[in-house]
Amino acid sequence: MHRIRLEPCERLFPGRYRLDPQQARHLVKVLRCYTGALVEGLEEGRRVILRLSVSNGVVEAKEVVDQEDLGGYASRVVLLVGLLKADQWDQVLRFSCELGVDQIVPVICERSVPRPDDWHRKVQRYRRILLESTRQCGALRPPTIGDLVSLRELDPSGLPELRLGAFLADGAVPIGEVVPCGDVALAVGPEGDWAPWEAEALIGMGFRPVSLGPRVLRASTAVAAAVSLVRLSSWGVER
Amino acid sequence: MHRIRLEPCERLFPGRYRLDPQQARHLVKVLRCYTGALVEGLEEGRRVILRLSVSNGVVEAKEVVDQEDLGGYASRVVLLVGLLKADQWDQVLRFSCELGVDQIVPVICERSVPRPDDWHRKVQRYRRILLESTRQCGALRPPTIGDLVSLRELDPSGLPELRLGAFLADGAVPIGEVVPCGDVALAVGPEGDWAPWEAEALIGMGFRPVSLGPRVLRASTAVAAAVSLVRLSSWGVER
Repeated sequence: MHRIRLEPCERLFPGRYRLDPQQARHLVKVLRCYTGALVEGLEEGRRVILRLSVSNGVVEAKEVVDQEDLGGYASRVVLLVGLLKADQWDQVLRFSCELGVDQIVPVICERSVPRPDDWHRKVQRYRRILLESTRQCGALRPPTIGDLVSLRELDPSGLPELRLGAFLADGAVPIGEVVPCGDVALAVGPEGDWAPWEAEALIGMGFRPVSLGPRVLRASTAVAAAVSLVRLSSWGVER
Repeated sequence: MHRIRLEPCERLFPGRYRLDPQQARHLVKVLRCYTGALVEGLEEGRRVILRLSVSNGVVEAKEVVDQEDLGGYASRVVLLVGLLKADQWDQVLRFSCELGVDQIVPVICERSVPRPDDWHRKVQRYRRILLESTRQCGALRPPTIGDLVSLRELDPSGLPELRLGAFLADGAVPIGEVVPCGDVALAVGPEGDWAPWEAEALIGMGFRPVSLGPRVLRASTAVAAAVSLVRLSSWGVER
């Protein structure tokens, strides 16, 4: 996260600042910060998080005080996702961070194209992508990402009780019918979907088959769609 | 769309076929078709659309009979979206097709990074991407994409009555509170969001500011999130 000094900034009112032209120019022109970006503000004995608002070269910054403003969601989303090719996988990581997944469980599937040989090297890169994404989206912490597992060895006991799996299956219910308010585990298969034994294993673990609409989504789009629906249908909504 | 001949296929029951090994192998090994892919089936005097189901090299195909199965949605979604850099823009096109946008209105924004010089050449490429995406996702037709417009020249009279704009603005309501069942126009800005005069122009056209959650989304993710919520919260749900 970029840092600014608060002393040269104009105090508009408590917790709100207009940045001096020098720091404003540096943030916008050099660091390419946009409205919504988070920066760390420092002054004698104090460290605060601020959200920027950029308009015509003028940069204002508002202190972010509670977890909600910092990108927090009240419930927990765990994503089981079949390992994908690099470009699709990187998208899954970014969507997860932006849209509010707390834990990514990468699943090596029968139909996963990439081979998991050098997972321990790769996962370091994935964690860097997730951390970088928190800076862009303002999440307080990145989703955790664990070791690759096969569905044969996955222990489901730590997963949230409500478990929804996106299957291309007859009998799947539209996800809009079962959309949750609380914690949820979501399972999205690799390109080409889960193999039949994998779909059965998921159903055995209590995953309910859900449909993400009448079209066939790429796996990364399916992640974005399922997590968006789970997060945005309840976020901020009075019930 | 790939084509198969139905004569050599085994008829399992009406409208359902098991493909002969030669055509099955060609679809899976050479054309890389997956479960869910659509193919055209031809036999003497008849042409049908079939959806594939692939498992352990065995390919079954089911006739797709109505518009719903072909990727149809009952309502109309129009997406106004700020022009983005190439990789983000291509994602927006694919999301639009997969998730069910009917019409894309590309908006040249004050903060759009790409210059629209050779739009007429580029739009040919965009239409090819959209068409290619219909083959992957099974949409009956691609979203239409019109000329680049500025919000100064946009005529909103043809847009659906319900208009929601994703703004990073105070006072935006959570999108989950206003999610529609019917036709809707969605507006998503470029990286760095709408300029203040653009946000005002949208509000003047009747766009209601909505929030897509506590985090700052990339523009392409915002498109996926907003369209997913609009489509999936009502699709297939009995009300």
